[in-house]
Amino acid sequence: MHVFYTPDIASDLYTLNEEESRHCSKVLRLIKGDIIHLIDGKGGFYKAEITEVGKKNVQLQVLETQLEYGKRNHHLHIAIAPTKNIDRLEWFLEKATEIGIDEITPIICDRSERKIVKEDRLEKVITSAVKQSLTAYHPKLNPTITYQNFIKQNLQGNKMIAHCMEGDKVPISKNAATQQSYTILIGPEGDFSPEELHIALQNGYKPVTLGNTRLRTETAALAACFEVNYINR
Amino acid sequence: MHVFYTPDIASDLYTLNEEESRHCSKVLRLIKGDIIHLIDGKGGFYKAEITEVGKKNVQLQVLETQLEYGKRNHHLHIAIAPTKNIDRLEWFLEKATEIGIDEITPIICDRSERKIVKEDRLEKVITSAVKQSLTAYHPKLNPTITYQNFIKQNLQGNKMIAHCMEGDKVPISKNAATQQSYTILIGPEGDFSPEELHIALQNGYKPVTLGNTRLRTETAALAACFEVNYINR
Repeated sequence: MHVFYTPDIASDLYTLNEEESRHCSKVLRLIKGDIIHLIDGKGGFYKAEITEVGKKNVQLQVLETQLEYGKRNHHLHIAIAPTKNIDRLEWFLEKATEIGIDEITPIICDRSERKIVKEDRLEKVITSAVKQSLTAYHPKLNPTITYQNFIKQNLQGNKMIAHCMEGDKVPISKNAATQQSYTILIGPEGDFSPEELHIALQNGYKPVTLGNTRLRTETAALAACFEVNYINR
Repeated sequence: MHVFYTPDIASDLYTLNEEESRHCSKVLRLIKGDIIHLIDGKGGFYKAEITEVGKKNVQLQVLETQLEYGKRNHHLHIAIAPTKNIDRLEWFLEKATEIGIDEITPIICDRSERKIVKEDRLEKVITSAVKQSLTAYHPKLNPTITYQNFIKQNLQGNKMIAHCMEGDKVPISKNAATQQSYTILIGPEGDFSPEELHIALQNGYKPVTLGNTRLRTETAALAACFEVNYINR
């Protein structure tokens, strides 16, 4: 099945942009009459027929439309410190998109060695995972902000922080009901600082454990993602 | 904390092999009197003091020994078709080791594009994840075998197959009790063949679902690993 990402689709007639058109005609060598599928990233899943093949503009006629395709019953937002090796963050984005996530925010923490991320590149990773896993909802990647500014946003719903320091922690499943909104903080290599933990607790974030083993940043984030999706199955 | 992998440790006196000795003295620049930790891969976790530093042989005196460190309450064996891009299999091995797995067998399936894996390289990936995540039990990597030969082994315990074909499937958690032995089959890109599924069912493997989204081979394997560890927490 050939899937294209068409966030700006607005009617039954659609023209692929230059890049997608070239991919469609030159790489996939699709021709007039071939059937492809479209995902708009907002829950729309479309079956379309190629009506005209130009090098730079492939025209389509939408045949079938499914809205709210694979609609999720909860909202998961993970705020994660970018990993030193950016491949690990990209890997997390790909896997989280496959398993199910709604929103991601890179947060710069006291102990973050990486303070800059190329959001456009991360966006591409998410989009290709969306196409590959047939996820009609495109996870939202927020701009990178500091930990302090993230906490200040005073978000609603279940707020949790996964840290490695001593103290009482409960599993996510014991901490949060199902079909709700969840925000989970994942720290950098070297963990959050005690001050960061203190601020989180003050702002209503509950400390959670992700199991007994020592997990890397990206593994911890994916473990949280898995657990939230699991309890909402 | 500096952790060394010492599978052959047998007494309170131990000498690191040439490679580890060089790493200890040249890279980490540790000296006589420094404290390091050892993992033997069989559940032994040791605290040791450096008593002698040679370029090729660093000698240690074990100060504390913990046996059955982080002993697991179940046995998880995942048989997975090697991915076309071997990085994806290596990534799975690292993550599964962090989260918890006991045995891995690469299986060559009808639709496997990759039919050869370098086990020594995969072994290195597992060992470095063992050290990084302080897992005192080293997961066992079995030699690569064909799907047919794997099924013929007639293993005991909970046997499951994760496939994408039509048919009744239940989640792992609904399929298996806790604290048991689990064997889970994960297919290649393009899934198992209908014949392979048929043979599995004939041999007592139950079909399981890992959720509603379309997962890559390595993501499916990790999702299974997450779920088994989760229900055994």
